[in-house]
Amino acid sequence: MTSADILLANRLADAAGAAIRPFFRSGFVSEAKQDASPVTEADRAAEAAIRRILDAECPRDGIIGEEYGIKQGSSGRTWVIDPIDGTVSFMAGRPIFGTLIALLEEDWPVLGVIDQCINQERWIGATGYPTMLNDKVATSRNCASLAKATLATSGPQYFTQHDGDHFMALAAKTAHKHMLFGGDCYNYALLASGHIDIIVEAGLKLHDFAALVPVIIGSGGMISDWTGEPLHAASDGHIIAVGDPARLEDVLGALQCDH
Amino acid sequence: MTSADILLANRLADAAGAAIRPFFRSGFVSEAKQDASPVTEADRAAEAAIRRILDAECPRDGIIGEEYGIKQGSSGRTWVIDPIDGTVSFMAGRPIFGTLIALLEEDWPVLGVIDQCINQERWIGATGYPTMLNDKVATSRNCASLAKATLATSGPQYFTQHDGDHFMALAAKTAHKHMLFGGDCYNYALLASGHIDIIVEAGLKLHDFAALVPVIIGSGGMISDWTGEPLHAASDGHIIAVGDPARLEDVLGALQCDH
Repeated sequence: MTSADILLANRLADAAGAAIRPFFRSGFVSEAKQDASPVTEADRAAEAAIRRILDAECPRDGIIGEEYGIKQGSSGRTWVIDPIDGTVSFMAGRPIFGTLIALLEEDWPVLGVIDQCINQERWIGATGYPTMLNDKVATSRNCASLAKATLATSGPQYFTQHDGDHFMALAAKTAHKHMLFGGDCYNYALLASGHIDIIVEAGLKLHDFAALVPVIIGSGGMISDWTGEPLHAASDGHIIAVGDPARLEDVLGALQCDH
Repeated sequence: MTSADILLANRLADAAGAAIRPFFRSGFVSEAKQDASPVTEADRAAEAAIRRILDAECPRDGIIGEEYGIKQGSSGRTWVIDPIDGTVSFMAGRPIFGTLIALLEEDWPVLGVIDQCINQERWIGATGYPTMLNDKVATSRNCASLAKATLATSGPQYFTQHDGDHFMALAAKTAHKHMLFGGDCYNYALLASGHIDIIVEAGLKLHDFAALVPVIIGSGGMISDWTGEPLHAASDGHIIAVGDPARLEDVLGALQCDH
């Protein structure tokens, strides 16, 4: 990963945003996928725009996209794309969805973009660089204890009963009057900017979490699975993100989770 | 209520927005109220800015504000203010909170503003006028059945167990994969603009719901309590809003609620 990749990632996000914006609050038609999650024309247009650039400029890199599947590469590098993360927010007209673009090297995320194209907010993290929100450094905040922590998760309906029980054990120890639901990738961006302390989720796929990793780490935070292990291409989709690395052990303890 | 009141309401919202914006994502200090909800300097600055204008220009009108309480009036008119509805979103840096300003005449809401001052989106509803989002008419959308409806609520933690059971009975009949959590007043604004179909909440106070009423009605939707009665100053804070009035009976039936 080089600074040229960061410039490329910016151009990919620009292309995705240009494809998405005409569809926001436009009354477009959605269709049901097998899992009944909403798929939009915007989703497809954005991923296609990104793939056109990658196919032309990085033909040896692999691509994993939410909409158009897997393209095997030969370079050891893989781009992972979720053109619209937070589709439900997008469909409801909330400008807190995001385009996620990650670059993996040998299955480890080394570059990540969270782009909110309506409000024109772009978080970029890359190994060895501080995370940026547009032209400013983004820094996560300290958090003295779980009792003072703002906890976020996308929604109780995304947990299995088992995972939800662990989540609630944690939630009971945090400032739960401040608990945030909804938000998807935008929560991680806000954690990187020092406005949220802890995010715990389950059931995320690689395209949901790969881009978050460099953004969180470059902001001074930590992100792991529910056993505290770092996230890579084969992680199981159970996610903990903390703005203050000193709280990771507390979260692991409060989740009371041994899987 | 006259068109002059609409102009005044715009100026009140302008003043509130100017007071709030410097505090957004600024790392300000919050403090705990008795109910442990976050109170911010922005909240107080915004309500004070609104009250200064009302005290000077409408000295006989009453005022009910979330932060500074009740000022008795003698005109039969009362302004109801929630300077920042969605404080948790505000604290977390999400631009989906809102300033709520309502005018009651003899306890009935006749004018309402939902203002999102970061994205500069302002919904205004007034009896006899179509609801406007900035300079465009806002219209709620049709919804063929509960099964196709997008349902929103601010969060499961705001329901009592009893209310939550009724809510879940409704949720099971809607397109629950699309269910939206969080959002507060912004959900109602998005319903008025045709992006959300149903909102059901409980425990709202007058300053939380008064401004919503004219916005929803002027967009073509309906808003009531959990018995289907219209909302006024003494309503109990159980709220149903539907973009398609034809769905109100379905919601009342699905809630299976007789209180």
